[in-house]
Amino acid sequence: MRKICVVITARPSYSRIKTALSAIRNHPRLELQLVVAGSALLERYGSAVKYIESDGFIITERVFNILEGENLTAAAKTTGIGILELSTVFENLKPDIVVTIADRFETIATAITASYMNIPLAHIQGGEVTGNIDEKVRHAITKLADYHFAASAGAQKRIHLLGEEKSSIYNTGCPSIDLASEALSNSDINFDIYQKYGGVGAKFKNSEDYIVVMQHPVTNEYQESKCQITETLKAIQELNLSTFWFWPNVDAGSFGTSKGIRSFREKNEVNNIHFFKNMEPTDFLKLLINSKCLIGNSSVGIRECAYLGIPVVNIGSRQQRRDRGTNVIDVNYDKEEIKNAVNSWIYGDQPQKSLVYGGGDAGKQIAEKLAEVELKFHKTIIY
Amino acid sequence: MRKICVVITARPSYSRIKTALSAIRNHPRLELQLVVAGSALLERYGSAVKYIESDGFIITERVFNILEGENLTAAAKTTGIGILELSTVFENLKPDIVVTIADRFETIATAITASYMNIPLAHIQGGEVTGNIDEKVRHAITKLADYHFAASAGAQKRIHLLGEEKSSIYNTGCPSIDLASEALSNSDINFDIYQKYGGVGAKFKNSEDYIVVMQHPVTNEYQESKCQITETLKAIQELNLSTFWFWPNVDAGSFGTSKGIRSFREKNEVNNIHFFKNMEPTDFLKLLINSKCLIGNSSVGIRECAYLGIPVVNIGSRQQRRDRGTNVIDVNYDKEEIKNAVNSWIYGDQPQKSLVYGGGDAGKQIAEKLAEVELKFHKTIIY
Amino acid sequence: MRKICVVITARPSYSRIKTALSAIRNHPRLELQLVVAGSALLERYGSAVKYIESDGFIITERVFNILEGENLTAAAKTTGIGILELSTVFENLKPDIVVTIADRFETIATAITASYMNIPLAHIQGGEVTGNIDEKVRHAITKLADYHFAASAGAQKRIHLLGEEKSSIYNTGCPSIDLASEALSNSDINFDIYQKYGGVGAKFKNSEDYIVVMQHPVTNEYQESKCQITETLKAIQELNLSTFWFWPNVDAGSFGTSKGIRSFREKNEVNNIHFFKNMEPTDFLKLLINSKCLIGNSSVGIRECAYLGIPVVNIGSRQQRRDRGTNVIDVNYDKEEIKNAVNSWIYGDQPQKSLVYGGGDAGKQIAEKLAEVELKFHKTIIY
Amino acid sequence: MRKICVVITARPSYSRIKTALSAIRNHPRLELQLVVAGSALLERYGSAVKYIESDGFIITERVFNILEGENLTAAAKTTGIGILELSTVFENLKPDIVVTIADRFETIATAITASYMNIPLAHIQGGEVTGNIDEKVRHAITKLADYHFAASAGAQKRIHLLGEEKSSIYNTGCPSIDLASEALSNSDINFDIYQKYGGVGAKFKNSEDYIVVMQHPVTNEYQESKCQITETLKAIQELNLSTFWFWPNVDAGSFGTSKGIRSFREKNEVNNIHFFKNMEPTDFLKLLINSKCLIGNSSVGIRECAYLGIPVVNIGSRQQRRDRGTNVIDVNYDKEEIKNAVNSWIYGDQPQKSLVYGGGDAGKQIAEKLAEVELKFHKTIIY
Repeated sequence: MRKICVVITARPSYSRIKTALSAIRNHPRLELQLVVAGSALLERYGSAVKYIESDGFIITERVFNILEGENLTAAAKTTGIGILELSTVFENLKPDIVVTIADRFETIATAITASYMNIPLAHIQGGEVTGNIDEKVRHAITKLADYHFAASAGAQKRIHLLGEEKSSIYNTGCPSIDLASEALSNSDINFDIYQKYGGVGAKFKNSEDYIVVMQHPVTNEYQESKCQITETLKAIQELNLSTFWFWPNVDAGSFGTSKGIRSFREKNEVNNIHFFKNMEPTDFLKLLINSKCLIGNSSVGIRECAYLGIPVVNIGSRQQRRDRGTNVIDVNYDKEEIKNAVNSWIYGDQPQKSLVYGGGDAGKQIAEKLAEVELKFHKTIIY
Repeated sequence: MRKICVVITARPSYSRIKTALSAIRNHPRLELQLVVAGSALLERYGSAVKYIESDGFIITERVFNILEGENLTAAAKTTGIGILELSTVFENLKPDIVVTIADRFETIATAITASYMNIPLAHIQGGEVTGNIDEKVRHAITKLADYHFAASAGAQKRIHLLGEEKSSIYNTGCPSIDLASEALSNSDINFDIYQKYGGVGAKFKNSEDYIVVMQHPVTNEYQESKCQITETLKAIQELNLSTFWFWPNVDAGSFGTSKGIRSFREKNEVNNIHFFKNMEPTDFLKLLINSKCLIGNSSVGIRECAYLGIPVVNIGSRQQRRDRGTNVIDVNYDKEEIKNAVNSWIYGDQPQKSLVYGGGDAGKQIAEKLAEVELKFHKTIIY
Repeated sequence: MRKICVVITARPSYSRIKTALSAIRNHPRLELQLVVAGSALLERYGSAVKYIESDGFIITERVFNILEGENLTAAAKTTGIGILELSTVFENLKPDIVVTIADRFETIATAITASYMNIPLAHIQGGEVTGNIDEKVRHAITKLADYHFAASAGAQKRIHLLGEEKSSIYNTGCPSIDLASEALSNSDINFDIYQKYGGVGAKFKNSEDYIVVMQHPVTNEYQESKCQITETLKAIQELNLSTFWFWPNVDAGSFGTSKGIRSFREKNEVNNIHFFKNMEPTDFLKLLINSKCLIGNSSVGIRECAYLGIPVVNIGSRQQRRDRGTNVIDVNYDKEEIKNAVNSWIYGDQPQKSLVYGGGDAGKQIAEKLAEVELKFHKTIIY
Repeated sequence: MRKICVVITARPSYSRIKTALSAIRNHPRLELQLVVAGSALLERYGSAVKYIESDGFIITERVFNILEGENLTAAAKTTGIGILELSTVFENLKPDIVVTIADRFETIATAITASYMNIPLAHIQGGEVTGNIDEKVRHAITKLADYHFAASAGAQKRIHLLGEEKSSIYNTGCPSIDLASEALSNSDINFDIYQKYGGVGAKFKNSEDYIVVMQHPVTNEYQESKCQITETLKAIQELNLSTFWFWPNVDAGSFGTSKGIRSFREKNEVNNIHFFKNMEPTDFLKLLINSKCLIGNSSVGIRECAYLGIPVVNIGSRQQRRDRGTNVIDVNYDKEEIKNAVNSWIYGDQPQKSLVYGGGDAGKQIAEKLAEVELKFHKTIIY
């Protein structure tokens, strides 16, 4: 049995890996070791750990490593503590392969620890382009990883251009599309959204049209977080459509964003927005499938919404240069641009569906490759 | 005044940066912040810190971060502690640019800390190719760094192929060549080598021909370290030439190497080797200039010896695929191959000098660029 | 100039040391080094750091060491990180004496670091008795400390009984009494409490009688935190007096307490309580001076209220066995007991003032002693 | 089954606990969890871990936490790292009781972690008096511990005077006496000491009389370590008796001591000393039993030698005020005093045996108590 240790450090990463986790667990030649760390363990960031457990996964180890401070120094230290803790975890678990996901700042702790301990490292979702601190981290992890599971042909090509052997790069599509595919086959919102998820603000009837907002801070622009979120808040208030709004995840800039939302709500009477802290991924997908438009800068707009054919207004630089379908209109942090884009989706043509991020079997492909690949932790640049 | 914070974590890195340190310190628009960390602070790894101070540099901060254990887990943890400590240091010093050197495992702590704290990061000696754990680290640092000071045209090209903007890559040559150039202009060994550096083993007359050995462990081959060093020991014993041998630096595998040397000495009567722990870089260069051949896997053989035209027998994979002059014969961990190669240099033609690693002004070029470059910590891949 | 390094790790500690800080800063032979750490830096625990700065103190170093998790393991790790960070701070600041305050779990990090680095250690408020985890910590710090500033004669005697030399123990009274003394001389609430401190819930007229509640979790009874707070909430609701209620500070059990309050508010219509997160110490003292009664388990009830002669209903074990004046009625976590005790203060005789915790010059006495004492970090038990 | 987690951080602690480990392992109602940490894991401090394993104990977890630096700051940080690591260990092992041994600086990491995690804590060998940094640590641990296993009646009484309940203090004697008792019943040196332990220096015949030296640095007197050891070296050289000398253990001052020994050997021709790094405890006891005298400041001289009736010359303050038998002559760091004391033992009356540190069944008593005691982690001072 090959021991596959997956480290999940944040709520969004869980959606990106869930179907792969199932496929690993169910694979006859693989044993799943599941490590949950960082903000995925903390209630105020949405307790991803609860969803993981309620989905039936057994958590092998929990690693608390978030240093409070919500500044850049604390983010760096969180990474340092992550390495200290994960070293102990890997020494105890002795995995054959470690899997790290995407590009959040704390994921590099997983990558460095595995690399230094000579444990083969697999990276999910390398090779993408955005244009913030995540980009430094994402490509640095590519240079540390031994196997690359790319989510699109563009990402696959880019990983190769970064100097990695073609034979170590697989375009499996994104596991998050697997979930979107499942959700599409059963997309009724068959629960009371307010009872199940609480939240605060306006409440809407089931029959009403609605839009969804999810806007994260952009790490490198800490000071501007508050201004940026305020433009969106104004646009949504003026559009006066029924709106479900999701709080941002934790990051060096999340404090400015949260502050901006709180401050706007105190100063303005906002009657068309209901705010949620978080939602189970499947429920969130159903909510999207039945919505008129997604606004913000979430990667869900670029990935899942491409496959699902959901209209997206993508704000600012966070998803810059990622491969995308025809379902995305890009705008600046500007109230009017946001309003115009939303209106063009509400009143205009609807987008085509796209397979740019895969066809719904990424999880299975990843598990199969993890069972097959030659174990190695040594590589050299191709150039 | 632009504050330039250079972090030195090991003895070999100091030689690679010394002339740049002088040039930064003497530059009218730069202020040098010098942080000494890791094994550079410890007596049993040669106390690089003493040489740094005796060269007249003022040390701004000392960071102790080596966790004892001499295994891979301890190496990972050392990196984690390094990040924790350097975060505090950078918060206090508030540098405008952080400079990290080369590719040893602990250097990535400097790179990650600076990146996460949004401090522009300069990397000395990226883009090279070797073929061990250092390679993962080196190219990962390239993906984190904002400015690249390459030591050769080949390295410069490779950094660009890794997806970095041409405008952020400078081929300055290697600062270690600056030292070699200085040493060449005054190469007499005008001191008593045994009195100044102690050491143990055989002693030779000044007039005798001699060779030099410096062989480091290769991290990824921990178990084999002892076998590898033993082949070299046997070759040197059988060659029966007067030999100066330098102990390896600290690494996950250094224990095996050290053990191999000790064990060989206990079991064999060795009459032609004198062992040193370390030597001031300038004295070491003089020793090389007057030697017949350098044997081992030190990068000095590839770089300084190219410029100086010194014959080198390079063993194993550690320097694999680095740009090199015509002064190097590559061999495997094989007693006979080593002996044959040494003999071919002793009795055959002598190599040409080469400028592949620069012409002796790298330090000044680096300082000038650090004073000129636009400050930035944000970048995106070119592909 | 003798360098006195005071480490403040939490909001309550600041009130306990404020007048000593002023006296140290103003002393001709002392230099104040002020380190702010732990929850004192964090907004969600009341940002003590802002009050410290607005009081005109210059902060020498900030140390972020709170590891998120709100469980006992995270509390232990927070202490470990505290030691790592404070070691660096003390190495840089080279204080002549380090001052640590009271008994919160993170204060032992200060005590251990100073002890191990051979820096003389002064402890404020040792020798007291409560009956929770704080008690282990408090007396352990006494055994690490070289000078003891006790807040009462009872505490002074107890420190001596713990094996400390009489000559190293000073009964200065508590510096928090100094603040109470100042507040008493100018006790008008000359500001709009709702405008200045926000908060949520009912609002009262200035002229109305009111009571104050402040109840912290008790670390050793994590599971029971929610039940305990609920008894108090019910009592206060049934008493139906105008009430100002303060949120608890951070601790392994604070989550249960906060949850209890939130849950009670959601399920019950509460019309007689206004909730505050925190208040500047001076304003809080004015609020107390003008109140009818303080309910909860805050040490303010035991100390400041003794000097001020304010009636107190003290709930549970947290202040158990502390020296006290005649102003305290002790009750269990029991709705009826709480109600009866409050009513007996509202409708019965008022308490006498007491000097058990000093007469208002503790800060000056502490500074003077710090300037006078012989520097030493070596001691032996008296028995 | 009650889970008993014993943390061993240094070689000397192992001798102090070995028979208790066996008794715990063999007890029908106890399960032994053995954690080996700190210098006990490291080859250059004598690899206690090898002896532990060769004695048949299974090591549950290994914790590397020694930060290199050999200065006081590194000692403090080692403790911080110890807490970080042990928190994870205890979270995984979920022990019912944690056992910490004696008073070395790193043992407080065990005590703090257990206390903060609400795990009942047992302390072996509290209540003793010496007069160095150990004393602060030892008594601080007493204030954190819930059960106290004292090694002598004097220690038992002192723990009570420190404010602990009599019912939580047991005078079991010292487990090291159990080993001395075993060794006495079979005390022949039936092995070739040079072959088994190597070492360097002079070699003596089996039939010769000899003395033994073991002198550790005294933490608080870092600078003087070298001078202190030199006095002993001179005395031993002039006495010109066959001498077995053991290297000091790791401590902030060990560098000075080691340097002193090396430097003396280089400058003087020393013909009567053989140096050992370490020895299995049983062999060491046999060596003592057959020796004429023990010189230095090891606690072995105070404890085991009391039971065994071996003459001791105890140098300096390290064992100051410990209970002792009549087998000890105390002297200062003074060549002449040392020589005179050794001569008075060699040529004078021999000491009586003493049961001051127990009668040889401490390990069994400790295991039995650990199986019986009520589990608790909450206590309050008796005063």
